[in-house]
Amino acid sequence: MNKALVIGGSRGIGKAIASSLSSIGYDVITTSKQELDTSDLSSVKNFVKNNMEVDILVLNTGGPPAKEFLSISEEEWMKYHNQLFLGFCMILQKIKINDGGYVFLITSSVIKEPNPRLIISSAYRSAFASVFKILSRSYAEKNISFINIAPGLINTDRTKELIDNIEEYQKSLPMKRLGEPKEIGDFVKSIVENKIKYLSGVVISFDGANSNFVF
Amino acid sequence: MNKALVIGGSRGIGKAIASSLSSIGYDVITTSKQELDTSDLSSVKNFVKNNMEVDILVLNTGGPPAKEFLSISEEEWMKYHNQLFLGFCMILQKIKINDGGYVFLITSSVIKEPNPRLIISSAYRSAFASVFKILSRSYAEKNISFINIAPGLINTDRTKELIDNIEEYQKSLPMKRLGEPKEIGDFVKSIVENKIKYLSGVVISFDGANSNFVF
Amino acid sequence: MNKALVIGGSRGIGKAIASSLSSIGYDVITTSKQELDTSDLSSVKNFVKNNMEVDILVLNTGGPPAKEFLSISEEEWMKYHNQLFLGFCMILQKIKINDGGYVFLITSSVIKEPNPRLIISSAYRSAFASVFKILSRSYAEKNISFINIAPGLINTDRTKELIDNIEEYQKSLPMKRLGEPKEIGDFVKSIVENKIKYLSGVVISFDGANSNFVF
Amino acid sequence: MNKALVIGGSRGIGKAIASSLSSIGYDVITTSKQELDTSDLSSVKNFVKNNMEVDILVLNTGGPPAKEFLSISEEEWMKYHNQLFLGFCMILQKIKINDGGYVFLITSSVIKEPNPRLIISSAYRSAFASVFKILSRSYAEKNISFINIAPGLINTDRTKELIDNIEEYQKSLPMKRLGEPKEIGDFVKSIVENKIKYLSGVVISFDGANSNFVF
Repeated sequence: MNKALVIGGSRGIGKAIASSLSSIGYDVITTSKQELDTSDLSSVKNFVKNNMEVDILVLNTGGPPAKEFLSISEEEWMKYHNQLFLGFCMILQKIKINDGGYVFLITSSVIKEPNPRLIISSAYRSAFASVFKILSRSYAEKNISFINIAPGLINTDRTKELIDNIEEYQKSLPMKRLGEPKEIGDFVKSIVENKIKYLSGVVISFDGANSNFVF
Repeated sequence: MNKALVIGGSRGIGKAIASSLSSIGYDVITTSKQELDTSDLSSVKNFVKNNMEVDILVLNTGGPPAKEFLSISEEEWMKYHNQLFLGFCMILQKIKINDGGYVFLITSSVIKEPNPRLIISSAYRSAFASVFKILSRSYAEKNISFINIAPGLINTDRTKELIDNIEEYQKSLPMKRLGEPKEIGDFVKSIVENKIKYLSGVVISFDGANSNFVF
Repeated sequence: MNKALVIGGSRGIGKAIASSLSSIGYDVITTSKQELDTSDLSSVKNFVKNNMEVDILVLNTGGPPAKEFLSISEEEWMKYHNQLFLGFCMILQKIKINDGGYVFLITSSVIKEPNPRLIISSAYRSAFASVFKILSRSYAEKNISFINIAPGLINTDRTKELIDNIEEYQKSLPMKRLGEPKEIGDFVKSIVENKIKYLSGVVISFDGANSNFVF
Repeated sequence: MNKALVIGGSRGIGKAIASSLSSIGYDVITTSKQELDTSDLSSVKNFVKNNMEVDILVLNTGGPPAKEFLSISEEEWMKYHNQLFLGFCMILQKIKINDGGYVFLITSSVIKEPNPRLIISSAYRSAFASVFKILSRSYAEKNISFINIAPGLINTDRTKELIDNIEEYQKSLPMKRLGEPKEIGDFVKSIVENKIKYLSGVVISFDGANSNFVF
């Protein structure tokens, strides 16, 4: 049975992906923050030491709190550098992806259109997007696809924390609604189920026509 | 029964999409160049006058020949302006997309990384990508998703015309192969079948990790 | 004496560039719309037939009117295709740029962030930006730099036509003001005066920190 | 007398900028790695504690060594995170930029087109480009321009370390040569000298027409 590891798979988008991969017969391991906290490198090292091999890896983590630039402390930069960047690097350095597999990365629309309130997330997710792009090339030879999904506003607990009046806010969006985690889960499932491999090294903005850039 | 119109659906990527939409129960109308030649505006006007309504529209057309900038004549600019840009505009001005529907546009990786040999294609496909982006916003209110798929090198007759020694050429690609039309057909099918709607207003580069830009 | 040709040099940004190039000793020829109307191909053909040679070419033209997509006629598409794209192509096919020279293109921030009201401009300026990028490569061997300047809201008659209450509008901009044509004129002058050649094949967004994309 | 601080100003591009700013009358303070090592946070903290105020700040630093992803250690990630990202954040949190001033950031073409050999640089420079973009908005109100210059291959000691046979390599570049540090120095000088302020929040690729993306 094929194996998938979904980091941050206990809620939100990660949970939806875990659930959709289960529905097509994958043996899905999810980690919650209690089991693997990428902001804590000793947790990461402990996790990767068992030499895991997977067919699908989903790199996903909650975002840092909204903070103004001037108020961000050295400790906070360090912590979220671990959480959003270094932890993922260490995981990719250690976990083996089987030939023909997939690595999905869940970032955010802020990688292309940075957001002042989400400056930490904008910065470190961009950094990891860069690493991810580079790795897509070397893994391509083993027929492993690297797909970076950059969601806009999705209906998760996280979004509810960030936006005060969501009912009102939704009306300002092109589709008059937030995206649903299930849409992303289904998207991932579709790629895998149909063995679509040539989609690799790319960012899939998933934002309900809300971005400003043409490409 | 839901209706799909696939322009340029008689071969290559268009044919693969038509076939995949048929497989999930769509009533698919395809047009070959003989039935609808977007480089000929009278053909376009004739085609759109029957007030068609569709659930899915796939805007797809073959590319112009490889030509050096200095050798392109006024007539050629005009012809391919019609084929790759104006014909599609006139179709979108006239054909009704039903609420909850989809419009897929097949462009090319040259919209982001222009190619000297494909200068006509690079230019006019970029132009239409811009129109397409703008329209994604207004159609979003009707829950219609606009998805621009930008393929890299796909295994079609077109690619065989453009590249001399494909066997050799493939070895230079990250995945050591061209993409298959079926991968794009399956991708389109998956989006539709799973009713993924929040993917809109975006370009999906479909190039086997071959592009240079990070996003 | 070195020669510069500034198309659309009778007002706005073109005039500011013409004036700044004069100030550093260039023999500047400007064309107004009466002398060279790029929307009229016979005007373009007439203009280019004298086999002009220049050291600096500035491709600049006014924008089309704000129009909704559905209301744009075939004739309008054609006219602005000439004005914003084909006329410039024909000029570049015929006018010789001397070795070590410059070609400046004045586009708009809408090439990266298309604007629904300026859909014609967004589309055709994008198309020409693609041609311009491609040509930057071939001209590089002759030490000719191609620089695409993409202004945001600049204090010109054009902007006053497009925006109702400019006083109020300016307050919404990051710098609380429009850009000045002179800033772009000075920018062009500086590049030329300092013989900066390695800046080529790039888009210089000139928008007072108003764009959303990171790059 | 106006004051400029050029970090990493003892050689290469930093030195050229320092020299060009001196030539137009700025009181230029440069720091070498011995005086301010952004990879060492105690060095940064020591440096910023004197509450410096400047009119122009140039954020510039050497790049990390070329390393394969799998061989990068935790300590190396941490060190270069400091050098290319966190040190600069701490400097911007503490040093006051006078109203009407400038902040220049020297990054690299790898922020848009990541390079496998320069994966550390690609990642952390991208991250800081994101912070820089966000800050350009808030500083705009004080008429302070933020300009990110992303050089391609420039004729510096660094480039000589990275490329084996530069003579041969240059022939593969569109301009058949590396860029000169002086071109970037002159570019910075021109912006400042002409008080061009509306150029802000943007990336200036400075790569001799060598990039692949259109924008």
